[in-house]
Amino acid sequence: MSVPKGNCLIAQSGGPTAVINASVAGVVEEAKKHPAITGIYAALNGIRGVLLEEIFDLGKEPKSNITGLHRTPAAALGSCRYKIKDLKTSRADYERILEVFKAHNIHYFFYAGGNDSMDTADKTATLAADTGYELVAIGIPKTIDNDLAYTDHCPGYGSVAKYVATVAMEAGRDTEALYTTDTCTVLEVMGRNAGWIAAATGLASRCEEDAPHLIYLPEAVFSIEKFVADVKAVQAKLGRAFIVVGEGLKDKDGNYVTTQTGEFSKDSFGHVQLGGVAEMLKNIVEQQAGFKCRYIKLGTCQRNAMHFASATDASEAAMCGRAAVRAAMDGVAGKMITLLRQKGTKGYKCTTGLADLAEVANGEKKVPAEYINKDGNFITEAFRQYAGPLIRGQVEIEIADDGLPVYVRLEKHMLKKKTAAYKLK
Amino acid sequence: MSVPKGNCLIAQSGGPTAVINASVAGVVEEAKKHPAITGIYAALNGIRGVLLEEIFDLGKEPKSNITGLHRTPAAALGSCRYKIKDLKTSRADYERILEVFKAHNIHYFFYAGGNDSMDTADKTATLAADTGYELVAIGIPKTIDNDLAYTDHCPGYGSVAKYVATVAMEAGRDTEALYTTDTCTVLEVMGRNAGWIAAATGLASRCEEDAPHLIYLPEAVFSIEKFVADVKAVQAKLGRAFIVVGEGLKDKDGNYVTTQTGEFSKDSFGHVQLGGVAEMLKNIVEQQAGFKCRYIKLGTCQRNAMHFASATDASEAAMCGRAAVRAAMDGVAGKMITLLRQKGTKGYKCTTGLADLAEVANGEKKVPAEYINKDGNFITEAFRQYAGPLIRGQVEIEIADDGLPVYVRLEKHMLKKKTAAYKLK
Repeated sequence: MSVPKGNCLIAQSGGPTAVINASVAGVVEEAKKHPAITGIYAALNGIRGVLLEEIFDLGKEPKSNITGLHRTPAAALGSCRYKIKDLKTSRADYERILEVFKAHNIHYFFYAGGNDSMDTADKTATLAADTGYELVAIGIPKTIDNDLAYTDHCPGYGSVAKYVATVAMEAGRDTEALYTTDTCTVLEVMGRNAGWIAAATGLASRCEEDAPHLIYLPEAVFSIEKFVADVKAVQAKLGRAFIVVGEGLKDKDGNYVTTQTGEFSKDSFGHVQLGGVAEMLKNIVEQQAGFKCRYIKLGTCQRNAMHFASATDASEAAMCGRAAVRAAMDGVAGKMITLLRQKGTKGYKCTTGLADLAEVANGEKKVPAEYINKDGNFITEAFRQYAGPLIRGQVEIEIADDGLPVYVRLEKHMLKKKTAAYKLK
Repeated sequence: MSVPKGNCLIAQSGGPTAVINASVAGVVEEAKKHPAITGIYAALNGIRGVLLEEIFDLGKEPKSNITGLHRTPAAALGSCRYKIKDLKTSRADYERILEVFKAHNIHYFFYAGGNDSMDTADKTATLAADTGYELVAIGIPKTIDNDLAYTDHCPGYGSVAKYVATVAMEAGRDTEALYTTDTCTVLEVMGRNAGWIAAATGLASRCEEDAPHLIYLPEAVFSIEKFVADVKAVQAKLGRAFIVVGEGLKDKDGNYVTTQTGEFSKDSFGHVQLGGVAEMLKNIVEQQAGFKCRYIKLGTCQRNAMHFASATDASEAAMCGRAAVRAAMDGVAGKMITLLRQKGTKGYKCTTGLADLAEVANGEKKVPAEYINKDGNFITEAFRQYAGPLIRGQVEIEIADDGLPVYVRLEKHMLKKKTAAYKLK
């Protein structure tokens, strides 16, 4: 099978994760083995950097920087939330991408991101094919939300899952110690439409005493009355209640229970920005259940917690990066790498597969009913079986003499611009 | 020197920390070596358990549980926020404490807590002396806030410092990756009156690029105008701003900038409960500086983060527990163990000393001016020299096959009650 000879470009998009850089390291390490790939470039800040022709040469990074990406959180290439619409509406953007790709002889495009990124990669490849430019686009799954379809799970999820479960375990011990006054705690985790992260905190509960005691996911309709009754029942039994909530909680009409207002009420993708659901629940607990309540809002620290990240997750993220390059070398195009859990094997084993970019772009995977208990306030054993293996092992990070982690920052040797200046819309 | 022969009682009070259980382990391990100490008891939930005669026998715990306390966060004995006033106002409470101590032949009282606890220990010892009961009361310093006087630093602080610095480092990488849309992040940490925890995040900043870029402490007067100007200046230079704030931020008149209302607006000590200063600053950044801003409120997870705790801190906490017992065996009474940093030695070395309980009870140690920069928005090199050594080393915890930490929960073999039932006021 003949594949084009030329440069490859890697880009990262959307919310960072603890292991998205491991995927980049996987791409770079694999790409170096293949003579068809002549140069390894990166876009600064995702597709934004392609449009602005802000591209740097990963081949010029010291080897220690690439190795260090395996244990550096967030998006070392820079990320973005730049939304490109369909080929009709945003044709100029896609044409600009191809103009930049051509100028730098880029024939391989590896894009690590969620479904919006898969959509961008797909449409870029479509326009390339239509206009006769040889471009191999391969997507690399990335999202802490774990909501991509066609893959058993997403790189990034295992690490956030391990961390939020640990936080629930530890903060739960605080509530257990101080229950005579500080009776309840609400822990808010990310997850706009899918409750995978909230569900993962349930892995911390090895027995009834352990936190969390109640978990509310966007997939289960939230009722204040039911919630107050749940909290009272747990407190009556254990003297305390540790509650986890996903940020995207919805009421019976499907509306978010908290919605922000003002200039930044929507992100640049038009997604509604959610306010503090934890603070809202804290107030409900205090006013309607009558218990003092504290709250924790982990925010972005949860998705970058490399200091206690899942080794399984990090190695799978790197595996996806390598698989993307190998697939391209095998003549595959227009696909996203998926994670396939081996069935019927003893223990957990995971390999990679492929899914059409276009299909991934339009899919969304919510937490299925079988993973949520009948009361809609906790996980099931089936969820433990699913998520348990994903948080195993711990990434060994480098700790400096100062007692803190060592994370790399790339040198970013920028390429000289070859096209006319471009203004973002 | 003759010391009484009898049982000892250990209790924990106030907010839990990652290492307060290590102090208990230190007490137990040392107490077992001394024949004058016949039994090792613990009060359930601090002084509350003494008043209610809820006491259990630590001597009956399996050895693995005591060893496990060295790496188990929060307060394994249970804690409380039960305030006892002066000997005149609350004499009945102190008499009750002595009644219970006498009933169980308790002649040693080791109390791990902050200044309120030192006050309770001091007044109990005073009444004992006045009434001719032989009671040796020794305080063990404990507070993440690091605000106890007469000690170089407090067990509990090093671990929270290490964790919040790591969170700032990691979440800072998120802001760095997504600055083109999510330009600013506010991280709120604990610290009602003293900014030691907020200051510690500055340890994450090894160069100008690193988060945090701005740190606001309760010790520096907060001005919204200055804050907005600071954020704009950092954004102009770096394209982003990562901001840390201590919960107890005060304005020029000394008032908290955020004050909660309602039934739980004060805790049981009468301390004002503070609302979300991070959310307030986020709104200021968005409305007045014009940048999208995210926020993180770590809440109780920061003080229990044993999964990334300071080995220095944990070993010093245990050392304080051992020192408390040794001091008692040496005939010392009415003192709190302090940490003494050795001056003039190469590197960091720390031993223990003693301070009067009564003096500690009335003291408070704020972050001194020399540790805060002139602009009141960052730390100085002098602070790095002070706090740096406290976060070194990492506690080695046990990780179960499920990928999560193993923390012990005590069996708590309760003693039979010997006194008439008592009702808390």
